[in-house]
Amino acid sequence: MNPFTFQNTTRIHFGRGQIAKLSKELSSYHKIMLVYGGGSIFTNGVYRQVKDQLAGKKYVEFGGVEPNPRYETLMKAVDVARSENVDLLLAVGGGSVIDGTKFIAAASLFTSGDPWLILSENAKFSTALPLGVVLTLPATGSEMNGNAVITRESVKQKLAFGSRLLLPVFAILDPETMYSLPFKQISNGIADAFVHVMEQYLTYPVNAPVQDRFAEALLLTIVEEGPKVLAYRTDYDACANLMWAATMALNGLIVAGVPDDWSTHMIGHELTALFGIDHAHSLCIVLPGVMELMRHAKAEKIVQYGIHVWGIDEDSDDAIINEAIFKTEQFFNSIAIDTRLCNYSISADDVEQVCKRLENRVLKWGEHKNIEVEMVRKILTMRL
Amino acid sequence: MNPFTFQNTTRIHFGRGQIAKLSKELSSYHKIMLVYGGGSIFTNGVYRQVKDQLAGKKYVEFGGVEPNPRYETLMKAVDVARSENVDLLLAVGGGSVIDGTKFIAAASLFTSGDPWLILSENAKFSTALPLGVVLTLPATGSEMNGNAVITRESVKQKLAFGSRLLLPVFAILDPETMYSLPFKQISNGIADAFVHVMEQYLTYPVNAPVQDRFAEALLLTIVEEGPKVLAYRTDYDACANLMWAATMALNGLIVAGVPDDWSTHMIGHELTALFGIDHAHSLCIVLPGVMELMRHAKAEKIVQYGIHVWGIDEDSDDAIINEAIFKTEQFFNSIAIDTRLCNYSISADDVEQVCKRLENRVLKWGEHKNIEVEMVRKILTMRL
Repeated sequence: MNPFTFQNTTRIHFGRGQIAKLSKELSSYHKIMLVYGGGSIFTNGVYRQVKDQLAGKKYVEFGGVEPNPRYETLMKAVDVARSENVDLLLAVGGGSVIDGTKFIAAASLFTSGDPWLILSENAKFSTALPLGVVLTLPATGSEMNGNAVITRESVKQKLAFGSRLLLPVFAILDPETMYSLPFKQISNGIADAFVHVMEQYLTYPVNAPVQDRFAEALLLTIVEEGPKVLAYRTDYDACANLMWAATMALNGLIVAGVPDDWSTHMIGHELTALFGIDHAHSLCIVLPGVMELMRHAKAEKIVQYGIHVWGIDEDSDDAIINEAIFKTEQFFNSIAIDTRLCNYSISADDVEQVCKRLENRVLKWGEHKNIEVEMVRKILTMRL
Repeated sequence: MNPFTFQNTTRIHFGRGQIAKLSKELSSYHKIMLVYGGGSIFTNGVYRQVKDQLAGKKYVEFGGVEPNPRYETLMKAVDVARSENVDLLLAVGGGSVIDGTKFIAAASLFTSGDPWLILSENAKFSTALPLGVVLTLPATGSEMNGNAVITRESVKQKLAFGSRLLLPVFAILDPETMYSLPFKQISNGIADAFVHVMEQYLTYPVNAPVQDRFAEALLLTIVEEGPKVLAYRTDYDACANLMWAATMALNGLIVAGVPDDWSTHMIGHELTALFGIDHAHSLCIVLPGVMELMRHAKAEKIVQYGIHVWGIDEDSDDAIINEAIFKTEQFFNSIAIDTRLCNYSISADDVEQVCKRLENRVLKWGEHKNIEVEMVRKILTMRL
């Protein structure tokens, strides 16, 4: 096991009816900014539940945060947060809304120039507005971590940042908010959470059985419960199990003490930024390619994964690895996600465009920091 | 899955050499009280490492906290903490030292009478001194929770209390501190951590696969890694895996959303208070009896446990349950813990003495709150 520091201070209220805990959570704040997305919270009843909890409080609203939240939109929210002197941001939605709210939290108090520097130059900040979350879509784990990914449309860039200051103070997870989600959002959430676990698990062994088994626990649960939610949207237990697994998938716990490899996410972000492919779909396209190209470097963990998660019984490691990659792609396909670039009308020329853009950057992706542009080209070419 | 609120704010520094993080952790405090036990930290080098980190700080020392820390001793520490105006307690040791330090933390600022009321009457307190931990023995999980168990020798009572205020601010877990631990302390730690997981797992199913698999992950790791530590005390990875499993076993995570049953601990505390049996040994005596008496109420989870943890392959549930109880007791015996009351010279008359004492209390132990004195009598009689 590698040395590590772990702390996660977010207070989780989990279960049916837990939105009722909101008014108490808000009691010490004076002016709240409610942040949400395209308005699904108006049809699923969450907006009403949240408003009831806000009774008697001062607040402003900022709606319209997009999937892959955009800098351009969020800067408008920053203006509101500043001019209204809000002292708590309340994100009501899924990962995009929460990520966008984290940017608002950091940017509102940022005084060292254009807040885009936080993303483009990794500019430091020492203060941020506190935020709380009412989660409506299990996927990104953003409700219990300090990270966010923001897109700047004008330059077609999708960049990540993070800080302990952006850990939500509290997060309310009511599985019933999932009942009215469209199929595609659920299936994307399943894939996103699955890949999060894979990127903290599928590296090389460091003799860390607690972390490995926790990761496998989450993968098995996502594989079992995800399809149940897709089939019966009001299966409370399946919703609850998927939601909790997705939160645990990216709250810092399973990665504490083990290597990680975010190359699938990094390559996927490029596909999303350039071609508008859904984040989760980009991951499902890229991951089988990363597994194939890295089949030797990752051999021990792919074999372990194949046996423990998919119960593969083959004679050779090579055969187990083949089957493990096949099972992974088949799982994505089974939840109606296409996993080839050609399904998205992406050509070899487009792959070249991705690689050209990356040539100006120092990548060093992967658990060995050795994934450079040429390997990205190989991975994406395999996925045409 | 049941609804729950979960928050654990303790900052963990894990790994070889992490005691070097101590001086930074202490930097904002003005006067520290170092609390330790019988002096093993003098021979294993931990005392020296901690003192080096205290260079330039004001501090006082309080040594001599016993296994099953005693109210009588701790009240002397309370006098010191008060008269010296300490603003941080630093527990250096295992579960007994940490538990004792938690009592000092609460009692030092308690102004509503004798601090024993916190234990005897569940008296509320709204403030406590902050505490930090340097852990030297994996076992109780006290380094990452807000609970403690204190013994009052004069009335032979061993009682538990807890508060969010007593969650350590930080805990440093260096597996190398285990290298010089005596066999018996390691084997007791293994048993204690194992039973902690069992009491949050072996109840009835509530469709919570993340929690169940996390619990099984910890049980499997303790069963695998514990004996390695006993055999090769300087096996760093085995020490690290056991240490992390023991911390995760009782930090609130695996119990979030599922029922729990602390009857083994409650009955065990009585054996320790009356007859001085080691805490861990008392658990190993009692647990097989609880499993046997509750074999029908707990049938589903015992079967699941038998299959997932011990790989039992039998035709009937009854046969699996028999084998699961046998394997559990055999595991305790394999780490050199006797599991029958007769091994400790406890007779049927002594069992009667335990039950007589309990007749004055309302027990309601177990996940169904239905374990009363008569059932305790049955359990202990089975364990003669």
